[in-house]
Amino acid sequence: MANVGPGFDILGFALNQPGDEILVEKSGENVHSIINQSGLSLPLDPVKNVSTVAIDSMLNQLGSTQKFRLTFLKKIAPGSGIGSSAASSAGAVYGANHLLGSPFTNRELVPFAMKGEEAASGSAHADNVAPALLGGFVLVRSYDPLDIISIPGPDQLYCSVVHPDISIATKDSRKILKTTVSLEKAITQCGNVAGLVTGLITRDYRLISDSMHDVIAEPVRSFLIPEYEKVKKAALEAGALGCSISGSGPSIFALSEHEDIAVRAGKAMENIFTVAGIGSNVFISQVNKQGMNVMTSE
Amino acid sequence: MANVGPGFDILGFALNQPGDEILVEKSGENVHSIINQSGLSLPLDPVKNVSTVAIDSMLNQLGSTQKFRLTFLKKIAPGSGIGSSAASSAGAVYGANHLLGSPFTNRELVPFAMKGEEAASGSAHADNVAPALLGGFVLVRSYDPLDIISIPGPDQLYCSVVHPDISIATKDSRKILKTTVSLEKAITQCGNVAGLVTGLITRDYRLISDSMHDVIAEPVRSFLIPEYEKVKKAALEAGALGCSISGSGPSIFALSEHEDIAVRAGKAMENIFTVAGIGSNVFISQVNKQGMNVMTSE
Repeated sequence: MANVGPGFDILGFALNQPGDEILVEKSGENVHSIINQSGLSLPLDPVKNVSTVAIDSMLNQLGSTQKFRLTFLKKIAPGSGIGSSAASSAGAVYGANHLLGSPFTNRELVPFAMKGEEAASGSAHADNVAPALLGGFVLVRSYDPLDIISIPGPDQLYCSVVHPDISIATKDSRKILKTTVSLEKAITQCGNVAGLVTGLITRDYRLISDSMHDVIAEPVRSFLIPEYEKVKKAALEAGALGCSISGSGPSIFALSEHEDIAVRAGKAMENIFTVAGIGSNVFISQVNKQGMNVMTSE
Repeated sequence: MANVGPGFDILGFALNQPGDEILVEKSGENVHSIINQSGLSLPLDPVKNVSTVAIDSMLNQLGSTQKFRLTFLKKIAPGSGIGSSAASSAGAVYGANHLLGSPFTNRELVPFAMKGEEAASGSAHADNVAPALLGGFVLVRSYDPLDIISIPGPDQLYCSVVHPDISIATKDSRKILKTTVSLEKAITQCGNVAGLVTGLITRDYRLISDSMHDVIAEPVRSFLIPEYEKVKKAALEAGALGCSISGSGPSIFALSEHEDIAVRAGKAMENIFTVAGIGSNVFISQVNKQGMNVMTSE
């Protein structure tokens, strides 16, 4: 989950649900192979699939010619705004690194996974792959040099994500952003993002809630998502701490202190889409703490 | 000290040195009186002096007609960029509140002290008065509603401030700022201010240092301060964690982890001005923790 409220382009966090499963195996072939068991459309060409682009960037660094066979059971829909390409890129390098005896730490895998993001969207963003690899909230303070900061968060924090059945391309969603912002809005955004990370670290739910305002991307991008204002209002009225666009949309997420509130917020958000005749999927998840994990050993 | 690097307009901290002394006494007269023992020019008219403007705002809230006599021994020069008017406003309401039996907490005094800032600069900023009253680092997350957040900082943090003998009016220094910033710079500033508060709270000196970049105000305002780039370079070469403009200048401050580095940085900064034929005053101070204090009891 990237673009967390005022943390537009710099703050993301990891979810327990939805999560992709990837079977990663060493292969004796001379090319990587990709098998799709997802029911979602994926590029099977290893030159085009983000996962193998990311793995090749890692192998290149190692000077290794090892090839891998990747079987995808994706649950995060491409184009959902929930970091689908990031999950593939980060999961693939995590699995391949594991099978190679872990020459890299999860933190060191971030730049490789970013190569997958670059292949997917044209720019090597880290705000999805870094949380996917490290878990929790992650601040991408800077790209040059790359500075990835884990932000300790409260033990209890739940996320409701609603993915409506509409489609927005990440590239379009970036194009509609203005290239300048008013000084006043820049300062407001700075105040809120500083407040948000302070609230997370000091476990101040009041501050987290009051800081969850994005005055830069949300006012523009929310126009691309039908019913956005109503969905947000429904989440807040259900007791969520804050609500904003997930990634570049169309998914919308809300943060809540308690699981029952997260469930209630998710239902209220879904209901707005239902009334408008738009189908949606809802996921309720604690903020993930540990990032990727190995589900079964080889 | 306001405008702490990327915390332009939203982050300040309190210094032990320089500090003003104000003798606050209840008066039997029917107007406030102001006595200046500072050797610095101060308005003596209680309608124009920021301290009495601030006190009247507090008395108004209390419905009190009490008058005060204020004797100033100011050590913070007006126009220095070290929060001279804030020290007067905050100190005056602190002293008067104390003599009235402390009807308000220090936090509750912030809006009254802001009235003094409004009289001084035309806008009711809190980023100097709030640290002066509360001590430590203070984030002004929002003005509407006013949201003042104390940021826990490292136990060891030293500031070197150099005040060169040149004059810049706060109003001019705000006028030269552009009213818009690029989206890219706004995001960079957000990343750095989030990194800075995270570094302060988690006592991560590396992160504090790497986050001390202001891409919005400093590149414009530094043109008003002769030798600025050289002074900054000298501070960093002496080992300071970061260096930026104090308030709206012309003072320049540097933060250091150890006192001896702060002393060395201060000397190096002063030396640049000396070589350029510009006199300056240097102050070395630990970041103040407790804010205002009563020096002698009544």
